[in-house]
This record gives sequence, C-alpha cells and structure tokens, in this order.
Amino acid sequence: MFNKRVKIKELLSQEPQEQEVTVMGWVRTFRNNQFIALNDGSTNNNLQVVLELGKFDEETLKRITTSASLKITGTVIPSLGKGQKLEVKASTLEILGDSDAEKYPLQPKKHSLEFLREIAHLRFRTNTFGSVFRLRHALAFAVHKFYNEKGFVYLHTPIVTASDAEGAGEMFRVTTLPFDNPPRNEDGTVNFKEDFFGRSSNLTVSGQLEGELGATAFGEIYTFGPTFRAENSNTARHLAEFWMIEPEMAFCDLEDNMNLAEEFIKYIIRYAMENNREDLEFLAQRLADEEKQLPQDKRSELGLIEKLEFVLNNDFERITYTEAIDILLQSPAYKKKKFQYDVKWGIDMQSEHERYLVEKHFKKPVIVTNYPAAIKAFYMRQDDGCEPGKETVAAMDILAPGIGEIVGGSQREERMDKLMKRMEEMHVPAEELWWYLDTRRFGTVPHAGFGLGFERMVQFVTGMGNIRDVIAFPRTPKNCEF
Amino acid sequence: MFNKRVKIKELLSQEPQEQEVTVMGWVRTFRNNQFIALNDGSTNNNLQVVLELGKFDEETLKRITTSASLKITGTVIPSLGKGQKLEVKASTLEILGDSDAEKYPLQPKKHSLEFLREIAHLRFRTNTFGSVFRLRHALAFAVHKFYNEKGFVYLHTPIVTASDAEGAGEMFRVTTLPFDNPPRNEDGTVNFKEDFFGRSSNLTVSGQLEGELGATAFGEIYTFGPTFRAENSNTARHLAEFWMIEPEMAFCDLEDNMNLAEEFIKYIIRYAMENNREDLEFLAQRLADEEKQLPQDKRSELGLIEKLEFVLNNDFERITYTEAIDILLQSPAYKKKKFQYDVKWGIDMQSEHERYLVEKHFKKPVIVTNYPAAIKAFYMRQDDGCEPGKETVAAMDILAPGIGEIVGGSQREERMDKLMKRMEEMHVPAEELWWYLDTRRFGTVPHAGFGLGFERMVQFVTGMGNIRDVIAFPRTPKNCEF
Repeated sequence: MFNKRVKIKELLSQEPQEQEVTVMGWVRTFRNNQFIALNDGSTNNNLQVVLELGKFDEETLKRITTSASLKITGTVIPSLGKGQKLEVKASTLEILGDSDAEKYPLQPKKHSLEFLREIAHLRFRTNTFGSVFRLRHALAFAVHKFYNEKGFVYLHTPIVTASDAEGAGEMFRVTTLPFDNPPRNEDGTVNFKEDFFGRSSNLTVSGQLEGELGATAFGEIYTFGPTFRAENSNTARHLAEFWMIEPEMAFCDLEDNMNLAEEFIKYIIRYAMENNREDLEFLAQRLADEEKQLPQDKRSELGLIEKLEFVLNNDFERITYTEAIDILLQSPAYKKKKFQYDVKWGIDMQSEHERYLVEKHFKKPVIVTNYPAAIKAFYMRQDDGCEPGKETVAAMDILAPGIGEIVGGSQREERMDKLMKRMEEMHVPAEELWWYLDTRRFGTVPHAGFGLGFERMVQFVTGMGNIRDVIAFPRTPKNCEF
Repeated sequence: MFNKRVKIKELLSQEPQEQEVTVMGWVRTFRNNQFIALNDGSTNNNLQVVLELGKFDEETLKRITTSASLKITGTVIPSLGKGQKLEVKASTLEILGDSDAEKYPLQPKKHSLEFLREIAHLRFRTNTFGSVFRLRHALAFAVHKFYNEKGFVYLHTPIVTASDAEGAGEMFRVTTLPFDNPPRNEDGTVNFKEDFFGRSSNLTVSGQLEGELGATAFGEIYTFGPTFRAENSNTARHLAEFWMIEPEMAFCDLEDNMNLAEEFIKYIIRYAMENNREDLEFLAQRLADEEKQLPQDKRSELGLIEKLEFVLNNDFERITYTEAIDILLQSPAYKKKKFQYDVKWGIDMQSEHERYLVEKHFKKPVIVTNYPAAIKAFYMRQDDGCEPGKETVAAMDILAPGIGEIVGGSQREERMDKLMKRMEEMHVPAEELWWYLDTRRFGTVPHAGFGLGFERMVQFVTGMGNIRDVIAFPRTPKNCEF
C-alpha cells in the first residue's frame, strides 16, 4: 500500500517532467504557509513542497509543524529556488502524524552534541547524525564487500564466552544466578556450575582466538561483531560496547598482515568517498565551521576530505617500535620535556607519544611493528635473534591522525613449544585453551590477523571527535539508556 | 611473503598449462606414497598433488599425515584421474606443521554430528561443515547486499540494554557487581545503581524497539546482530545466543511487510544458489544419503536443491490466523485426534499445527497474519473492526517446511492512544519507554518490520537438522565451550 512512495534521494536525481509522485517524510521547516522542506532520511537534502495559496484549509496548515509526518501527492516541476532543480507542487496533503512544536526537543537551531546525546533516539533526524549514520552504514557494507571479494569467510564468533584467557581487558559477567542467595559450594564460593552455562561466563573482548580456529580451516576468515570492555573509562575514545572487525589469515606473516590492513582501510575509505560524497561534504563543512571557533594553531591543516584523499594517495609509514622510540628521544618535544610520560625502550607508548609520531613527525598513518614482548599478548609471534632483555614480537599497530590506535594485530605464535613456554610465563592456563592449542598440534601454519575498531574508523572518516557520536546508542559507565 | 600462494578454488578453475604455482593447505589423504589430496578451505574440492617416486626422502614422506600442513611448489598439468582436470606435479615440498595421525581427532571416516559438536574447533575442516559455513557466509553477505541495494541503513542496535520491556523471553544479566557482598540498598535489595551501567542491565532479546527509532528517521533500517534468550530449552531448534536480522520500515503496512519478507528470503536463497552451487550440491547429496537410512514415508519429497527451487518459483501462501485455525479444525489430523494439543481460536499454535499447515496442507512456506492480540506483543498494530473477544493484531509469521517459524513481524501500533492503552493492559512500564513513545508523539507514521532468525534460515538452506550445526560455537544450557 505504501510501496508507491518515491524516496526523496531518488526523486532529487530525476528530471522535473510534471510527473505525478507520492512522497512521505517529516517536516523540517514550513515557510510562509507555502513552502515545506520535507525530509525522509534518505538524504540530508530536503524536498521542497509547494502548497498553492488557498488550496489547503487553515486547520491543516496549522498542523504542518517541525517533525510532523506528511503524505503528499503532487507534480514534479522545475524549481526557481537556489540549490534545487526541482520541487513538488502538492495536489493532496495528508497529515500522518502531528508534532507539538512546543514540545519537540529538536528545535530548528544548532544543538550541542552533548545535548543530542541525551536524545539519541531523535538525533538521527538531524543533518549531522543523518550523515554520520549513513556513512557508518556505507563503511560497514564496504567491510563485507572487501572481504567477500577476497574470499574470506565471515565467521560469527561467540559473544558469551567462558574463556577469560586473552587478558585484553576487564570483562562483564553474564549470569542468570540470583544475587540473593546464589548457589554455593561447600567452601562458600559461588557455584557457577549452577549458572546457565554451567560455568562462569563473560562477554567477549575479542573473537580472535576463535577466529584462529576458523582461519586454520578456511584459510581466511573475518569477524564483525560487538566486543566489550568493563573499564571505567569515561573518555571521548572509549566505549563499553563497540564493534570490531577481526580478519585472521593462515599462510600469512607480519608483512602480508600490514599489506592487508592498509589495503582494507583504503578500500573502505574509497568506498565512502565514492558512494556517500554528499554526506562527507556536509560533515567536512561542519568540521570546518567547528574549527573556525579554534585558535589558528589548533585547526587541522587539511579539511576532512583532503585528509581522506591524502590517506588514499600515500603509503602508510612503517617503522619498528625501536625506531619509534628513537624518534621520540630525538624529538624537540622530548628535549623540551613536553611529554608528560617518560620515553624509553620498553614503555607502552602513551597517547601523547603516538600523536607526536603521527600528527607532528610523519603527518600520516603510521604502522609501528615489533613491540617489546613484555607489553604484548601471549599469542604474538616471538621475533628470532633478539638481544637478551630486548625481546620483541611480530606485532603491528596502526596509528591514525586524530584517533590514535585504530588497528592492533600481529603474526601469531605458531610454534607449539614457544607458545607453551610463553603461556606459562604469563600465567595463561593451557588446559582452558586446549582447543586453541590443537591448531598448533595438528598441522600448525604461519598465520596472522588484526582487529580494527569500527567506531574509531567511523570517527576517522566522519571527523567526529567523540566516539559516542558515531554509535547509535553508546554504552559507557553509568549509561545504558535507550 | 606468503601472498604468492594460489587458493585451490582459484587454481581448480584454471587450465593446466604447465604453469608454476605455490599452494598451501592441509593434507586430507596421502595414497601410495605419491598422491596427496590437499585442501585449503576455499572449497571442498581437494587438489591432487603428485610426488615423483624417489624424489622426496623417506623422512619427509612419513610426515605427510592427515592434517599436516604443507607448502608445495610445482607445475600444473592435466590429470588422468577421474573427476579432476588438473593436478600439481610437486617440485618442492615443505612441511609447515606436523600432525600426529594417531592423535588427530578427525579420522578419515564418517563421524557423527554429535561427536563433531564436541570438537567444534576442528569440524570446520570437514566437508560438511566447510560447506555449511561457506554457505552461512554467502547468506550473510546476501543479507547486506539486499538491504544496501534497497537503501536501508544498517543500524547497530545495542547488545547490552536496560530495557526489559519487550517481554520476548528470559534475559541474561550483565554485571560487574560481585556475588559476594554486593552493594545493597537500605531495604536489603541489591543496589544496581552501583553496577557498571548504573542500573540493572541485560543482554538484548531484540533490536526492534531501537530499530523503530532508526526507521522513523532514516525511513528504512535493518539490524543484523546477536540476540539472546536465557531459556532452558535443550532442543534442536533453540540457542541461547543467535543472530537475527530485523528490518524496520516507516511508511509501511502489513502487506508491504509481507512483500518485503518474501522478496528478501527469495533473494538470499537465490544468491546462495548462484554463488555456492558446489557447497549446496554437496549438502544435497549428504542429506539424500542421510535420508536413505529412513523409512520411505519419512523421507523428503524433494531434494534440498529442488526444495529451494520450489520456494523460489512459488508464491508463499498467505492466510489469516482465523483461516489457519479453520483449516486445522477441518483437517483429518484433527478429526482423528492426532494433534497432541487442542485446536481452537485463540491458541498459540504449536509446532505440530504449524507443521501440518506447512508440510501437509500447503507444502510450501506460509505467511499467517492477524493473530489474536492476546498472544502477541504490545507494540503490534490493533486491527480495526474486530468482533469483541476476537481482537486481532497486524502480525505476520512466516512458517517454513522443516523449520517452523522463520520470520516473526508486524505492523507496529503507531496510534499513541491505542498503544498506551495496550501497554497499560499488558503492564509494560511507559515511563521506561519514554524514548519509544516519543516516536509516536512527534510525527508518528505507519510502520512495520520483522525479525528473521539467521540460524533457522541457514538450516533451511543447508538442510542441517540441528541448529547447533549451523553456528560456529553454539551456546546452549550448560554449554559455553570454545
């Protein structure tokens, strides 16, 4: 019944030839009792609907308020207004739903992003969030398209897991046990055998370990699913619930891994540039306007689209961790004691160090490799021939301007003896990971993979400064609304 | 370094022209110290690698065991063997990883599906699960392709939610509070204000309510994410963690909703037929072999591929709930008292009733509409003009042969007064759903949507009888391994 409507995005791409159309959408503005700017979410560009004076009764005209929903039939004619080639001359107008303009939280003015977060259920109806979430969609689709074209298998790794061995961060417990009087063992501890899954279980922090099981059968797999961190981080860079893409490849070493990650990032940016140009241009303008408020030296050198083009057209810089530390030690920032945290070989680089490398020194995405073993996870492949005390692993992190770490990955330790020794040193319980170790027992292969934080990628492409503005309903400490 | 390898699927599509290639994979079988069947997960079809007698030493030959991983370079030549047009004559062979044939759990024989569930980390290496999970990938990609082409926005609705208002089923608690000595209020109850999200929170049972927020801004959205049920159902049809696709459309009524669902299901089946024919043929043969063990009258009338073709080539049957009850009451099964559960207007149809309609009466997918309001959720649109005591809602369930309910959906109640009244009757707390109600307050629109259980769809296409065999690592009561 409703399938006869034409979407505004499609209509705006047609030529005005007095064709009859039906459009539906929400009122953005209504001027002079005559001109409706109608939006249906398919694009930020509103359709101008023209009401012939005197054709519609006063009662109806009064109900055409911001966010009221309308069904309009009419004729598509050339527009004399600027910035639009066509408009619809309404022949019928039906109010589908009223909207009390006094009470509607989105007034036709600029709202702060903080305020819009409080009404995240309505912020989709603004131009900014319309563009952000259409771009998020485009990037997500590009992810699937990229891996599908390469023959990777999309693997849904589990969300609830009993494995807490990876140590990527604090975890959320998943349970059906009652807090009041939970079942207990004889020694007084809670008896998780009585819990739903028969053991203590958590929300996953990464699908990697299960991804490796897939890669060592299908050759190449990827995951794209939600992951969780129960960390009390109230920052513009952290979420308790976020989406991650984790490809994992058999017959793959660190260099192949870097090549894939760089190709992947460029592919999805290019896809967004080619398919969502209007949304990008809108956000580029938004960012430029926002930066006008900043002092000259705090503004970006490149606009949003120029930044993305620069990333597409240049190789990512590739340096080892040891080289990165040397650069930092030689830097004016270090010599002038401008870093808050100390710099020396062995440190887990802080955000200020990463930003220096990426934003000041190289001014482009940087892949840092071969980190100290001591600050990385047990499964990373140990580099051969290291100086004692300077053991490194075949890790790689990709750092992006304005965002920081956007990718973390490594070649995995495929040698059973070295893996077991490392797990022992790091107190990772081998018996719990019997299934993981089986991949090394039965036809082990060199393999590698990485994780891309999807929200950080969306931030990078949209230019949004706060990660809470690129996910529909952000989950953060003390915040689980909607 | 490894990126020079050619995938076996690609190699098998080439012509043998004495080209030099590098292949890597795992040994499936090794015959006569000469013929290796090598598999790399890209296809079930193994590559035959031929070792010239005497060219490789005894020590190496001994290590070519089932599941050992190899790197082979050689020349592609025509094969004299049956069923293969080419093979690789090995010039070099490197053992990447050994596999102790005595200990390797997958012996070259037929294993039961139950046994393979115990070693879900290795079952990907069998032909059956190779085909199942490549098809799962293809279906997932087709889902994204379908909605992207239609201009729907992919919305990531939250996984952790404080909303427990939908009542779709039992929920898992998500918490960081300790079971021992949790913070308590003065009245002794647990103080969830101290919990991570500042309130009692759970794993989502559906993204629909949030999906409606997206649809009433973007027009059309879909979700594709994990959902959870903490129900103690140990059946071949239930999982505690499963993936669901939930499109939600503004300006859409029940009929549009049915049309979309039917088009969608046919699209993804057609995609699998066109892109994964070999895997489907393998599974069709597997199912035919399995059914040979059954008595004649228990066998399917149609093979797997014929069944899918039949679905593609025929309209789904569309009947109202009231018509469905009439059919059941007229059925020989009812008259001969063969149903375990009673049939009368108002019942929530049992599996036996649905199967009768789908498998015996219509022999094709059936869309049942306009169910009694009393057995459906609060948000479904109330049908106008119902006889008192026979109130129905604009619901639609799609029932598929062999699977049962595969889609559940409805037109949503967009009329604020009717929605509020229904929520009150069903004790759904309006104050907790203030954001949901805002969509009715500010420019409400007729809208509709549905949920497709992804695993049930994968079952339908692959012919796998147990839902645990179509998800990588199934989560069920007392089972959270891997």
